[in-house]
Amino acid sequence: MSGGEALVHALVDSGVDVCFANPGTSEMHFVAALDTNPTMRCILGLFEGVVTGAADGYGRMAGKPAATLLHLGPGLANGLANVHNAKKARTPMVNVVGEHATYHREYDSPLSSDVVGVATPMSDWVAMGDSPDSVAALGAEAVENAMVAPGQISTLILPADTAWGRTSAKAVAGGPASAPGAPDADAIDRAARALRSGDRCTIFLGGALSEERVAATARIASATGAKVVASTWAPRQEMGAGAVPIRRLQYFGEQAAEQLEGTQHLIVIGGKPPVTFFAYPDKPNWLTPDGAEIHQICDATDDVDAALETLVDAVGASGEEPARWELARPDLPSGELNPLAIGQAAAHLMPENAIIVNESGLSGGAYQMGMRGAPSHSFLALTGGAIGYGIPAAIGAAVACPDRRVINMQADGSGMYTVQGLWTQAREGLDVTTVVFSNRQYAILQFEFGRVGAHNPGPKAMSMLDLSNPDLDWVSLAQGMGVPASRATTAEEFNVALERSLAEPGPSLIEAVV
Amino acid sequence: MSGGEALVHALVDSGVDVCFANPGTSEMHFVAALDTNPTMRCILGLFEGVVTGAADGYGRMAGKPAATLLHLGPGLANGLANVHNAKKARTPMVNVVGEHATYHREYDSPLSSDVVGVATPMSDWVAMGDSPDSVAALGAEAVENAMVAPGQISTLILPADTAWGRTSAKAVAGGPASAPGAPDADAIDRAARALRSGDRCTIFLGGALSEERVAATARIASATGAKVVASTWAPRQEMGAGAVPIRRLQYFGEQAAEQLEGTQHLIVIGGKPPVTFFAYPDKPNWLTPDGAEIHQICDATDDVDAALETLVDAVGASGEEPARWELARPDLPSGELNPLAIGQAAAHLMPENAIIVNESGLSGGAYQMGMRGAPSHSFLALTGGAIGYGIPAAIGAAVACPDRRVINMQADGSGMYTVQGLWTQAREGLDVTTVVFSNRQYAILQFEFGRVGAHNPGPKAMSMLDLSNPDLDWVSLAQGMGVPASRATTAEEFNVALERSLAEPGPSLIEAVV
Repeated sequence: MSGGEALVHALVDSGVDVCFANPGTSEMHFVAALDTNPTMRCILGLFEGVVTGAADGYGRMAGKPAATLLHLGPGLANGLANVHNAKKARTPMVNVVGEHATYHREYDSPLSSDVVGVATPMSDWVAMGDSPDSVAALGAEAVENAMVAPGQISTLILPADTAWGRTSAKAVAGGPASAPGAPDADAIDRAARALRSGDRCTIFLGGALSEERVAATARIASATGAKVVASTWAPRQEMGAGAVPIRRLQYFGEQAAEQLEGTQHLIVIGGKPPVTFFAYPDKPNWLTPDGAEIHQICDATDDVDAALETLVDAVGASGEEPARWELARPDLPSGELNPLAIGQAAAHLMPENAIIVNESGLSGGAYQMGMRGAPSHSFLALTGGAIGYGIPAAIGAAVACPDRRVINMQADGSGMYTVQGLWTQAREGLDVTTVVFSNRQYAILQFEFGRVGAHNPGPKAMSMLDLSNPDLDWVSLAQGMGVPASRATTAEEFNVALERSLAEPGPSLIEAVV
Repeated sequence: MSGGEALVHALVDSGVDVCFANPGTSEMHFVAALDTNPTMRCILGLFEGVVTGAADGYGRMAGKPAATLLHLGPGLANGLANVHNAKKARTPMVNVVGEHATYHREYDSPLSSDVVGVATPMSDWVAMGDSPDSVAALGAEAVENAMVAPGQISTLILPADTAWGRTSAKAVAGGPASAPGAPDADAIDRAARALRSGDRCTIFLGGALSEERVAATARIASATGAKVVASTWAPRQEMGAGAVPIRRLQYFGEQAAEQLEGTQHLIVIGGKPPVTFFAYPDKPNWLTPDGAEIHQICDATDDVDAALETLVDAVGASGEEPARWELARPDLPSGELNPLAIGQAAAHLMPENAIIVNESGLSGGAYQMGMRGAPSHSFLALTGGAIGYGIPAAIGAAVACPDRRVINMQADGSGMYTVQGLWTQAREGLDVTTVVFSNRQYAILQFEFGRVGAHNPGPKAMSMLDLSNPDLDWVSLAQGMGVPASRATTAEEFNVALERSLAEPGPSLIEAVV
């Protein structure tokens, strides 16, 4: 078989059976190999940011990596922003990047570049095949490294001649390349003492918010009176009816500082102590209150579940029964269409077990407030802050969970970065409802402009923060890529559009003019 | 003033007065500074690949750099593919990349990444500001390095606190940071002897094809009987009536080898000896015929004009008068709409002095054949091979040359990568006609599939090369971004649409179903 076939088989044998792809000439042998393995599903994206963002959404929901197929250094570069998001979310992902044939790389041909250099900043593991015999083993190793908990980015560079040459080599990943690190037992002891002392304790929980983890922190809180705050951008959270409530750290530093105010012991589990997203002039970026003692129990790559279990036992909280959200769907909204109304309509209409992909920018707080009482759902956030994540991640979530409706809450400015993903949603017939918050501005930047101390933007500055002139017509954009779409300017119109979208299989888009 | 203001002033004082931008929070002080300098024009792109591709088109036409403004590592990553194209084209470009405040970079905040690592593979010069006092000088240095002939990529990383802090530092670029290298005088002597010897000589000319350079090679050819071949992807070429004809190297290796067959002396000026774009199994990638002697006179960064002048004199060709293309507009086509007909219609209808931005994929050969007899025009090619170049480069060319009509000959698959650029064309009212060759496939990949030896693609492979299901509706896409658009399915419809588009100011798009 060809090296390309060997790699496809190694990926499938290692449990990777979905490949999001945007191939070019140097990947044709991998593409040809797809038809030699019936298990591998391959999904085309019309831009690489769609491909990598889809792999992020897939990995977060499936708990295992998808492969991506990208074309040389520039193709990888186009996908890097969403690889960055996946890296920050610690999503497992295996990127396969075609490269010139080994003997062609010495020439300065047009598409030559330092592919390893492009891959390195956003990857946890990078390797390049040197022969057809090498690629199956490297494919298995890529999966092993991607599966290091909670997830890593593996990038395997595949020179064209390693894909077209013949080989009989096979390989299967043997499991994660390394086990999660042990939590700091001394820090757990100290944290447990602090929790039992009556001092004001705050548990800061990083990483994905599984039901078990959130429940564990709620038990500790219930037994000790501690406060619990999760990171702002948890990659995935189980929410809605039946879920245990947990507060997230506020995005803006002033509000985050308020949440943490008075903390005497900050107990950090599954991450690092909280900092602001950006630094601002004359505002603190380090959010741990002065004088508070930090108990760093474990980072995101360590065994967070074991740490929580130990801590629950240490404070005698295992018998606590945490409160849970109850189903209390709000009434359908009426009148003005705004983010709050959109959240209410969603909570009223959405099916059980939906997946919300959130890239809603400044509209996010209000629509999430409107969603109180919603049925059980998973919630995916923009963990790495690189916009252009929502439309692609919705693809990946829908591929991973074909029986669940995906609702992508999408800011208009961010949506434009990877708008091409709508076409893939149409081609694959994915059950994705995209709600575009069409406010025709980079609203968050207008807000941030003042916060960074640059008051009273002039006309040139304002024009950089404004998406009008001309207004984007999201209905045309979606229809241009085969996705049915409608526009809503009132809550009533939105209710009708959302009900119809949720009832119909396949993708559709609602431009919500807010 | 703020560091941001100091940098804007330094750029303007160094001759850079256009900034293509996609800013975020960390760039707000640079954005605020735009209004403090009336000379700096700032143009928003809704995706970073639009921004960098526009700077490439601008730099090729203006002969000096535009600035770009990008948001942190992921924003730069999104722009890298078109930076790659600019680097291969040796276009002058100054990227300003915002970064976290110096004291925030130690934290693992969501948007933190190795920005220098992201910049390095596609930049010739990279620097990071460390204080507000540093950035004006670095800005001037960035321009100096961008202006090293024929052009370089400078990337200046601007931590937010270096932009918001106060400074009184000013700086102006003093000219290119280094002079072009001298050609190899011995190689010129040897080449001149070969040219006068009666042996079969081929001059291989790299880099931009200015009128002077092409005329010089034509004089040598006329005096000596040598053959002249230019690189396939010359960044810019002056073409049409009045221009001196020059053949380009064919894209496919077999055809390129035919062009060079029989060459005894290959005289390489302004580049490296020719290689194929990709390597293929069992096909040569090194194109110099066996036994031919290579005379490497100078690379692209050396003084190509001086080399040619010396060689013209050395072979006594200065008195030769090269032939030139004459104006012979073809008749308007009729009947079937195909690339040849599109070229004929363009040559019949286009105004004098237009700019063709070519990203037409497999349709390129036929439409260019149809353009024989066209009026004088400049022609920009996809020098780096990273697709998604056409729509943005048309923006930059139109900004650099507001009195010239830009015609973007655009393949549909490639156009999707940076389709967001249409919005900028509408916002800025740029005189750009986009002709989309809508064949609904990655035609070149279908062609390449067989060439790489992977015959008979299966259904999964074919689906990776096919853009139908659903068909892209380019009229809707363009209208969704405020660009008037129409669809043509016959030559007659295309003629009408093109005549209207060329007559009306501002952008418009024609989906040519071929």
